[in-house]
Amino acid sequence: MATPDTPRAGSSRSAPEPGRLSINTATVRKQWTLAQIIEGCARHGIRGIAPWRDQIAEMGLVEAARAIEAHGLRVSGVCRGGMFPAPDAAGRNNALEDNLRAIEEAQRLGADCLVMVVGGLPKDSKDIAGAREQVKEGLAALLPHARAAGVPLAIEPLHPMYAADRACVNTLAQALDLCDAIDPQTSGALGVAVDAYHVWWDPQLEAQIARAGKSRLLAYHICDWLVPTRDLLNDRGMMGDGVIDLPKLRSRVERCGYAGMHEVEIFSELDWWRRDPHEVLDTCVERHRSAS
Amino acid sequence: MATPDTPRAGSSRSAPEPGRLSINTATVRKQWTLAQIIEGCARHGIRGIAPWRDQIAEMGLVEAARAIEAHGLRVSGVCRGGMFPAPDAAGRNNALEDNLRAIEEAQRLGADCLVMVVGGLPKDSKDIAGAREQVKEGLAALLPHARAAGVPLAIEPLHPMYAADRACVNTLAQALDLCDAIDPQTSGALGVAVDAYHVWWDPQLEAQIARAGKSRLLAYHICDWLVPTRDLLNDRGMMGDGVIDLPKLRSRVERCGYAGMHEVEIFSELDWWRRDPHEVLDTCVERHRSAS
Repeated sequence: MATPDTPRAGSSRSAPEPGRLSINTATVRKQWTLAQIIEGCARHGIRGIAPWRDQIAEMGLVEAARAIEAHGLRVSGVCRGGMFPAPDAAGRNNALEDNLRAIEEAQRLGADCLVMVVGGLPKDSKDIAGAREQVKEGLAALLPHARAAGVPLAIEPLHPMYAADRACVNTLAQALDLCDAIDPQTSGALGVAVDAYHVWWDPQLEAQIARAGKSRLLAYHICDWLVPTRDLLNDRGMMGDGVIDLPKLRSRVERCGYAGMHEVEIFSELDWWRRDPHEVLDTCVERHRSAS
Repeated sequence: MATPDTPRAGSSRSAPEPGRLSINTATVRKQWTLAQIIEGCARHGIRGIAPWRDQIAEMGLVEAARAIEAHGLRVSGVCRGGMFPAPDAAGRNNALEDNLRAIEEAQRLGADCLVMVVGGLPKDSKDIAGAREQVKEGLAALLPHARAAGVPLAIEPLHPMYAADRACVNTLAQALDLCDAIDPQTSGALGVAVDAYHVWWDPQLEAQIARAGKSRLLAYHICDWLVPTRDLLNDRGMMGDGVIDLPKLRSRVERCGYAGMHEVEIFSELDWWRRDPHEVLDTCVERHRSAS
């Protein structure tokens, strides 16, 4: 693993606009409350934020919306809707109800999108095709509500190592197939979130980003893949510390017309969650410029 | 995670032929030498074995071949060739030389195939497309030697979580694209190894197994994906303890005409490597019958 002082050589391209940087609140959630993260972003000149729903609930939706607005932050996404598959109809109804509340929250915050982590296998099931069918049905049921609220749904394909327990949508091609099936008119209400961590390995990545185009590409998340990765969930790297060619990925995303935020989402039990949150945000700003 | 006594419900189909069970020696490598594993397989009525090259070297190739033959074991594969990408020409030449030795060993053992774990990113590189090009060139250079030796090369797509450090071929589609590019005549000398652990999540799995067909499907490996998975490398599950619908996968593989061995390959630092190896092999036999 490269040290923070010597990031691996990647593509050299012009630096991204600093104003596009957004912080997913998971990045400093171990250190700060949502209120502190909002203040912290403003203090560090960061213009965007992507709050998690548990933190919104803790702060209160009205107060969270007030503080975000007061600091002029753009909400690049709300984390998260989804989690559709369930063993029975009651479970599926609960998921739908919860997703409706998520849409309301995203609407109140004026979010660019609601990020959809679709869910994995229901308890004791080995039927991944069935889970995928449930995801399709859940998204189709939710879409009219999202459209009415003006909150686009961004399906986030997760890395295949999360297929069992977090999301059975695991490639951009699969997410776009869902979009085409459920929203064939490309209404703008359904698209995808491209997270570098989840998709960097995909041999079809370039072609599928081009396929997504501006109309389907609703969110762009960044961090880095560390070698070695010591934990399946909470060992993501800061941009520049791993093996993902982030400048190249950004150029592909921009070439397809994406003009939204670059949202940093780092789960890091062993490193960044243990650091001073001001240092974390400073580093996000610097690495967004130098290694993204 | 289901306990060994209560495997999750999977598809119920007719049990596989017991004679198709093969043991990849990694499954008990912490407990036994290759000589002991050969004896152990014979003692437990297991008809196939897939040795790793470091164990072959330790035992000696001639002696290993003699013992395997003496016990009438079929060698379902030799682990492993590959590891092509390197930072410079000298490194690539070394890889080629090592692969030539691997072919000789597989030939001497009369192996069904040489399993190719193609390698990840060269040191300090973020160029996965470049690594994939090196893999293609390496396989193309090796193929005539494999053909001359009568040892088919089985490209094993590894799970995307190994893309950086073990194999930048990560889907069956990608492996088959390589086969079509390098061996367009489908000579029988180049194909794929389907390992349930690596491919179970793939939305294209069924279509790509059908595409592979009997001529390209050279090996079939089984184990299970545990929930939670506690380690990226060494927390594979025994068949029936995880979420993979192995009977369904076997039926797909058999439907395309595959009539080779079912090779059990379990890396398990926290569980199976700590058990009595006789218990491990007994369990492999039982779970091959009841949960594969």
